[in-house]
Amino acid sequence: MTVAVRPERLAADDSSTGRAALLKVALDCFVDKGFHGTSMRDIAQRANASIAAIYYYFPSKVDILRHIMIDVTQDLIVALERARDAAGPDAAKQLAAVVKAHVRLHTMRQGESFIGNTELRSLAPADHDHMIALRDRVAEIFRTPIQSGAKRGIFRCAFPHEATLAILTMCTAVAGWYRQDGGETPETLADRFAALALAMVGFSGAA
Amino acid sequence: MTVAVRPERLAADDSSTGRAALLKVALDCFVDKGFHGTSMRDIAQRANASIAAIYYYFPSKVDILRHIMIDVTQDLIVALERARDAAGPDAAKQLAAVVKAHVRLHTMRQGESFIGNTELRSLAPADHDHMIALRDRVAEIFRTPIQSGAKRGIFRCAFPHEATLAILTMCTAVAGWYRQDGGETPETLADRFAALALAMVGFSGAA
Repeated sequence: MTVAVRPERLAADDSSTGRAALLKVALDCFVDKGFHGTSMRDIAQRANASIAAIYYYFPSKVDILRHIMIDVTQDLIVALERARDAAGPDAAKQLAAVVKAHVRLHTMRQGESFIGNTELRSLAPADHDHMIALRDRVAEIFRTPIQSGAKRGIFRCAFPHEATLAILTMCTAVAGWYRQDGGETPETLADRFAALALAMVGFSGAA
Repeated sequence: MTVAVRPERLAADDSSTGRAALLKVALDCFVDKGFHGTSMRDIAQRANASIAAIYYYFPSKVDILRHIMIDVTQDLIVALERARDAAGPDAAKQLAAVVKAHVRLHTMRQGESFIGNTELRSLAPADHDHMIALRDRVAEIFRTPIQSGAKRGIFRCAFPHEATLAILTMCTAVAGWYRQDGGETPETLADRFAALALAMVGFSGAA
């Protein structure tokens, strides 16, 4: 399945501040009360906007959720692919680069990442399938260097499938526990997680 | 803070099948629509019961959530402590044992684990604090052997704090992706995750 990703998105700004501001407020509502616990009226009240203003930008509440979840996942894919491509062909360097990029995004966009991890069930069926395809693509970006490194003996890893899932989920979970006032910078945390991931796949050199 | 855990709970059965059945139905509702998206009426309808029957057992919806989340976390602590104690004093054996016990419970009680991971924000403040204390205790069960093994040079692990969080969250996330029809038994998955966790903390012997 071909999945559309917009590589220009990270650089582009949202010219309509109204729309971007409403997305931000809706995200806060979803984080606090869950998608099903939030009404369009809640979003309007918190944004000091009319319900009509919300419907001007978004046909439905589930459309807002779709934008939040798909946008952050597309941005993640762009960030991961850039990091991987910049790392060159070495499997260890590639794995370290994608772990770092993943952790960085999940420390900096915690709310969106949390919603992405908890509200998949709430999407419309077509969007649900789109999200699954995007997630498969994320998993593939981790799986490829892990499998290739294991196959070539660069990694001593008997379970590349489980290692892929373990590394992906430990990086994703950062969005749930990272505290920006906790002392560690996103960069330090990203470096340490890269070292832990390389240890997990049995890499003993320097990435 | 002292945290009450009932070690007898794993063995005990719920004598009131009505109450246990309602908890099961409520769990299914929460998994499908989230805590805030579920009403007491939804639970009653799905259980083919009257709303009065629900209120007979539970004073409120948030009380049902409390039972689901605290029960599964208390059971987890009991399972982890038993596994750790049975493993003896060796740090590698302890870590392998608690990883296996954690993965096993999260493959077998996926719905409760998922709710435990996503609805913490929905608990009443006192229950929220109780859950945080229980979770700290879970984290401690992982942290102790990791720190002790790192300190004694049994593990080559420069970041025991981050390794603890990484291992804990990769094990917890199993509840989200494990498919009971996917081929791997809970036991096989538990063994592989234990091997990956030991590799992550830089243990090269046999646990």
